[in-house]
Amino acid sequence: MKTAVAAQPLPLAGIVVLDFAQFLAGPAAALRLADLGADAIKIERPGTGDLCRALAVNDQWIGNDSLLFHAINRNKKSVVADLKSPPDLEKVKRLISTADVMIHNFRPGVMERIGLEYAAASNINPRIVYGAVTGYGDKGPWRNKPGQDLLAQALSGLTWLSGNADDNPIPIGFPLLDMAAAGNLVQGILAALLRRGVTGRGGLVEVDLMSSAVDLQFEPLTAYFNDDKTPQRSAVANANIYGAAPYGIYRTSDGFLALAMTPLNRLAELLNMDALNRFAQSEAFARRDEIKSLLADAIQKRSTKEWLSLLEPADVWCAEVLDWNALKSHEGFTALEPLQDTQTQTGLAVTTTRCPIRLDGEFLTAKRGAPHLGADTKEFMGSKKQEKRGN
Amino acid sequence: MKTAVAAQPLPLAGIVVLDFAQFLAGPAAALRLADLGADAIKIERPGTGDLCRALAVNDQWIGNDSLLFHAINRNKKSVVADLKSPPDLEKVKRLISTADVMIHNFRPGVMERIGLEYAAASNINPRIVYGAVTGYGDKGPWRNKPGQDLLAQALSGLTWLSGNADDNPIPIGFPLLDMAAAGNLVQGILAALLRRGVTGRGGLVEVDLMSSAVDLQFEPLTAYFNDDKTPQRSAVANANIYGAAPYGIYRTSDGFLALAMTPLNRLAELLNMDALNRFAQSEAFARRDEIKSLLADAIQKRSTKEWLSLLEPADVWCAEVLDWNALKSHEGFTALEPLQDTQTQTGLAVTTTRCPIRLDGEFLTAKRGAPHLGADTKEFMGSKKQEKRGN
Repeated sequence: MKTAVAAQPLPLAGIVVLDFAQFLAGPAAALRLADLGADAIKIERPGTGDLCRALAVNDQWIGNDSLLFHAINRNKKSVVADLKSPPDLEKVKRLISTADVMIHNFRPGVMERIGLEYAAASNINPRIVYGAVTGYGDKGPWRNKPGQDLLAQALSGLTWLSGNADDNPIPIGFPLLDMAAAGNLVQGILAALLRRGVTGRGGLVEVDLMSSAVDLQFEPLTAYFNDDKTPQRSAVANANIYGAAPYGIYRTSDGFLALAMTPLNRLAELLNMDALNRFAQSEAFARRDEIKSLLADAIQKRSTKEWLSLLEPADVWCAEVLDWNALKSHEGFTALEPLQDTQTQTGLAVTTTRCPIRLDGEFLTAKRGAPHLGADTKEFMGSKKQEKRGN
Repeated sequence: MKTAVAAQPLPLAGIVVLDFAQFLAGPAAALRLADLGADAIKIERPGTGDLCRALAVNDQWIGNDSLLFHAINRNKKSVVADLKSPPDLEKVKRLISTADVMIHNFRPGVMERIGLEYAAASNINPRIVYGAVTGYGDKGPWRNKPGQDLLAQALSGLTWLSGNADDNPIPIGFPLLDMAAAGNLVQGILAALLRRGVTGRGGLVEVDLMSSAVDLQFEPLTAYFNDDKTPQRSAVANANIYGAAPYGIYRTSDGFLALAMTPLNRLAELLNMDALNRFAQSEAFARRDEIKSLLADAIQKRSTKEWLSLLEPADVWCAEVLDWNALKSHEGFTALEPLQDTQTQTGLAVTTTRCPIRLDGEFLTAKRGAPHLGADTKEFMGSKKQEKRGN
């Protein structure tokens, strides 16, 4: 797919991003901007820095910082500044005067008290693109609620979409809303940078976990808001609140099989299941639990491999169900080159995933690991160098 | 937050996007670009158009098209073209010559056969930014597998993250990977447009469902790839594969309560549960099922409201668990103004969600509903008008 013309620079080469945010949505947005070529500089509090440095999962540490911190903050620099100290704040304002983007995820009101809200930042630098992530926006009864992923999932209706009808509400088992809000923030920031190219002026980009949760559900929520009957999860193999049979995951004799939309008469024929012919295709949603129960009984009698070798050649949309161990060694996975190795300044290695965007046939990878707390303070806060940068 | 200066145009004003894609990732990306101000034009096959027009969920239709189609394709135009007909293809090439962005989600090889692969499009228009969504990239054994959300979820390991240890793998109950890939495509396209502002040249942006699934899991996957022990879902109230107790959703006497990370001794005190003091904080992960079982027993004895009135004032991160009915009427939801009303050309109304990005304090909404098939063919494919646009 590559053309013969000279390679182009990374899209955000020369763009400076100040990342005031802490775990997770804000720093994940800054990470994406860094992978797209921006110079991302974390502004961290003295002593502890980003709280994520001390927040480990699975008790994994790389040097003094959690592995989690390394995953989210690779390919960035770190500057320590006490935003409550006037001399430090002054230096940070000088950084803002030459930056292109700043990102924070403080609760509503915090940046106003510091004096770095959008209006103030825009006064310092009218070209600044100012990105803010909150949990629930700046109005309404939730505005001061913790902007935490699980809580936002619980409030957003999302947890009633996964699992079967008799299950408790089931949260999505990773911080999905932080990731979604981060992606939306990146989009808004890039769009505002494009607009700046036309108007010469920056802008304010705001995203929140709840609006991001609503947006992720936009397809089923649009159905709901034009109908008003609350849909129910199916009792068997639920995989989509409005999904008709057979849509779902079924147990086989030795594993599991995912089955996407397939006409019932086609399944009846391939699975040799006359019972399915009792149902009209138009009943595939209304009677999905009866149909899925029959399917579940039949599918558990043979192995995953047997089902795949029967159904795949017939162009039925199906797949085996992998866990990470099986995924890791699968050629389909490795062919995507989904991993990259990074290295800290002191030579510690961290394997992590790469940016999911491929540009001109190349993956966007970067060797640079996460910075030590304050590794770049001198470069960006030392007053002499600062003066040079100011012009 | 608004400044006194004049309002700026929408960020993508003047940008023309040709959307060759069908349900769902590609059209969702084009929708986002449209909401950011681009002119999004669907290029659809004669007769049926985007297959999503005939793909209804919940048997909901608006005019001749599914409500689903309306949700995904509002704020766009529609041009009918038969890409296998040389005269139509010629006209489409002329559209490409003046467009800024094109998007497709055909399987690998299809655009090559038509003669509209990136190299060809770039020959027609070196400034074109060319976005392609696939299921699994263009290499490896999965390259020809259907790029379908549930199947990609099943292969990606994702379905082993939700639900409790004894559950089957549980898919996420909405097309998450389509949404994630759409978001990544938007980011790549916007970044390439920014680069074009510097270099004058377009570029090729490729995303796929599987890499998007890997990226969504980047945080727990990084833990896994630096450890190699496959983590297990907790047996009780699982909400994060690496989450320590109490992280999860618990049944109360009249509903459910979400509890995020909280120190065990704090919970012991507030819930008056001496039993929790048997566990050191450092055991909150390793012994999470014992701890969560004790919590589940205690929490089900009182109502959600009682728990919230005890825990929220103590700054414990917790929330009630809402379904869509409860969400819809909650002031926290309505304060976000998450819905918008659109209208088709024939005056039919569709309520849907808005773009989750807020710009300069304003939400990005648009009244325009989805187009009839070919509503704008004359404007864009009629040769006289085409000649005008060509210059």
